[in-house]
Amino acid sequence: MNGHFARLDQARFPEFAPGTVWLVGAGPGAPGLISVLGYHALGQADVIVHDALVGDGVLDWANPSAEIVHAGKRGGKPSPAQADITIRLIAWAREGKRVLRLKGGDPFMFGRGGEEGAALRRAGIAFRIVPGITSGIGGLAYAGIPATHRDTNHAVIFLTGHDEAGEVPQSVDWSAIATAAPVLVMFMALKHLGSIAEKLMAAGRSESDPLAIVSNATLPEQSVIKATLGEASALAHENLPTPAIVVCGPVVDLGETLNWYGAAERENRLG
Amino acid sequence: MNGHFARLDQARFPEFAPGTVWLVGAGPGAPGLISVLGYHALGQADVIVHDALVGDGVLDWANPSAEIVHAGKRGGKPSPAQADITIRLIAWAREGKRVLRLKGGDPFMFGRGGEEGAALRRAGIAFRIVPGITSGIGGLAYAGIPATHRDTNHAVIFLTGHDEAGEVPQSVDWSAIATAAPVLVMFMALKHLGSIAEKLMAAGRSESDPLAIVSNATLPEQSVIKATLGEASALAHENLPTPAIVVCGPVVDLGETLNWYGAAERENRLG
Repeated sequence: MNGHFARLDQARFPEFAPGTVWLVGAGPGAPGLISVLGYHALGQADVIVHDALVGDGVLDWANPSAEIVHAGKRGGKPSPAQADITIRLIAWAREGKRVLRLKGGDPFMFGRGGEEGAALRRAGIAFRIVPGITSGIGGLAYAGIPATHRDTNHAVIFLTGHDEAGEVPQSVDWSAIATAAPVLVMFMALKHLGSIAEKLMAAGRSESDPLAIVSNATLPEQSVIKATLGEASALAHENLPTPAIVVCGPVVDLGETLNWYGAAERENRLG
Repeated sequence: MNGHFARLDQARFPEFAPGTVWLVGAGPGAPGLISVLGYHALGQADVIVHDALVGDGVLDWANPSAEIVHAGKRGGKPSPAQADITIRLIAWAREGKRVLRLKGGDPFMFGRGGEEGAALRRAGIAFRIVPGITSGIGGLAYAGIPATHRDTNHAVIFLTGHDEAGEVPQSVDWSAIATAAPVLVMFMALKHLGSIAEKLMAAGRSESDPLAIVSNATLPEQSVIKATLGEASALAHENLPTPAIVVCGPVVDLGETLNWYGAAERENRLG
């Protein structure tokens, strides 16, 4: 259809008011997976502060006059402290800028959006959330792996593989995690995957549980490693590409049937 | 920025080939939350088959020449059986149509996308998935409730409140669910909420656990009821508006601080 996108230039999207901050989820990587509302925000923003998980393709869609600021952290490299990022968001907003805080995935799924929102509220800065597609669901979909499936699971657990100190989260009850749902989806779990797998198997998960590691999900360079929970420890030492999502459970096997992201689809960098 | 959306009419999106099916997530309700790629598909499709959770606002964005087919089911009303829907998808594809199967939320989060994808594969019909924002994350965000928060939870469980027979899922280990994560997000849980709450409390969850029911999330008519797990049973009899997402856990209290969806934002039906 001609002009299908152009007609959205006449749509009455919410105003991105000067002096406010929008916390926007960019989705799992492919630029086409950002929401229409998030795309609208890219065109309105004066400053775009993004983390390392936001792909270049999404940033290519920014208003050309916007200032683009990298505030990412990514395995090992020094990165601005969370408090520093928040202070800068507040300062830009007080200058009357439209500040877009762009995060990989969704701001509220292991994205620290709650902390930033609370700090903005304390500073009296108006903000809004624009949700994004989490890689734990949408990223796995590009490997043909459904987070839920009628025949396999009525529940799914999402968890992070390390805490603020970079260690395996201590507050997590691994025994309950192991039995609460057939499907576990783990973010940032590669570093401690061996240790996590040991805890899950000690709590009764079978070493033959299917496991997949999806790296660079939704991007042309996406790679998928399939193994079992018992093999996870060995995989964790293989320096697999990141970012990666780890999924454990029977839905992994459905990837054989549901896999759709082939060579033709990879040629397209938009999704 | 002028023509911000118009320039996407020149972008090289994936081709929606005749004779193929795209399983697309429409997001939680507000049309602005569909992905850019999903919006692209709306403009290309010959037939759009949607369920009851897809809002009118999203359908307003369809190619005007597309045939719109309602294949929804919604509490109580008779609805086409899943097998019938799948048969029709296959028939349209074999006629050479571009078939868009549009689902509320995400196709793989309690959306039965896996079943439809498998049936299409068996029939030799090419398909792809376009993920959507699940209401369990993005819907809660409009109530200021983060699915995860650094201070409260390293894990979150998503579960469905009824199985294929409409009963509380029997395969779910409620005792493990109760202890595996501080935050539970429940889909389609209103009908059996009293029973589910009893099971969670019997397994050790406190009756004072904060609980919220978010109805019509992301839409202007969104309503949020806050209570406790102990009060859930009484609430379940109050005929609250649906669709509704139920969330239990400490993140509910963050809604006081993080709530941003006010009267001004509600005026805008796009998100």
